[in-house]
Amino acid sequence: MTTAKRDTYTPETLLTVAVRVFNERGYDGTSMEHLSKAAGISKSSIYHHVAGKEELLRRAVSRALDGLFGILDEPGASRGRAIERVEYVTRRTVEVLMAELPYVTLLLRVRGNTKAERWALERRREFDQRVADLMKAAAADGDLRPDVDIRMATRLLFGMINSLVEWYRPQAAEGGGGVDGEQLAETVVRLAFDGLRTSR
Amino acid sequence: MTTAKRDTYTPETLLTVAVRVFNERGYDGTSMEHLSKAAGISKSSIYHHVAGKEELLRRAVSRALDGLFGILDEPGASRGRAIERVEYVTRRTVEVLMAELPYVTLLLRVRGNTKAERWALERRREFDQRVADLMKAAAADGDLRPDVDIRMATRLLFGMINSLVEWYRPQAAEGGGGVDGEQLAETVVRLAFDGLRTSR
Repeated sequence: MTTAKRDTYTPETLLTVAVRVFNERGYDGTSMEHLSKAAGISKSSIYHHVAGKEELLRRAVSRALDGLFGILDEPGASRGRAIERVEYVTRRTVEVLMAELPYVTLLLRVRGNTKAERWALERRREFDQRVADLMKAAAADGDLRPDVDIRMATRLLFGMINSLVEWYRPQAAEGGGGVDGEQLAETVVRLAFDGLRTSR
Repeated sequence: MTTAKRDTYTPETLLTVAVRVFNERGYDGTSMEHLSKAAGISKSSIYHHVAGKEELLRRAVSRALDGLFGILDEPGASRGRAIERVEYVTRRTVEVLMAELPYVTLLLRVRGNTKAERWALERRREFDQRVADLMKAAAADGDLRPDVDIRMATRLLFGMINSLVEWYRPQAAEGGGGVDGEQLAETVVRLAFDGLRTSR
């Protein structure tokens, strides 16, 4: 216990600051100096909490990945017809993305220049693959359009979902001017699976 | 005419190099020094062709913007029912994105720190707005699902289309392992307007 300021930091609050700086400057472009300045504590105080910036990255993307993989263990993702499970996972992925916005943003921007980044990319691909497998199962059930390439459709679905990190901001953050999260999750599911068009 | 090397450069080929470097390093992170190294010509040789990096950015994003705005003047975008025009513009936007991949990639990554960047963002918003207006017209015709917020759906549609710059690579570039462009454009339109699901 040296200073009051230092005492206010926990690994958790430090993580919040680190993720913000990583997202602003890029992980590669962030030094311990940047983190120290942003947190308002010395580098040695940071080292008191974590081994280095790699550990902060690992913890941050773990939070995003735990949220995403957690979805796959939920009853809605593991029981019932594949198409229902795919829709469920799509809706919940949007929800986790919104709930853990800075952490998922960081996960999606990781470039693979370091070991921790490559591990994050690998885990992310694993999640994408699990969803791709569900999509394939839904196609095998005859519940997905046969004239659409499933691998391509899965990429487009993730492209749409992941684009949210570029423009979605919680309502509270914009004083009510933001987007209704529940409606957004539902819109993604409706657009992707039922399409925007009423009739032909 | 000083050296043979210098003679091989035209504003067009210089632009190709500049766009590649801008996309790799980010526009903000690119100096005339970087451009000179990448092009293998002196800075003064570059100034012989263009006033500076801002002019290169302007030319590069203009190429993307000309391609995109050109779509809106095509008969398919200006005649017929709004829903048909929206589908046409969606398909053509994907096609222009694939044909002008590095230029559209640059346009989508522009951040607005300089006058040229802000101009590019402004023009891009203008294009998005034109498509949003078409979507609204299709909704007014009763051709879009009434339970979906059109502004949100338009953002998601662009999110899906724009995500292509992250993963689409032309077939030739990967020796046949890439993605079929025509099929991709069609898949985007089918996913967005008819949905992936066969029946409910």
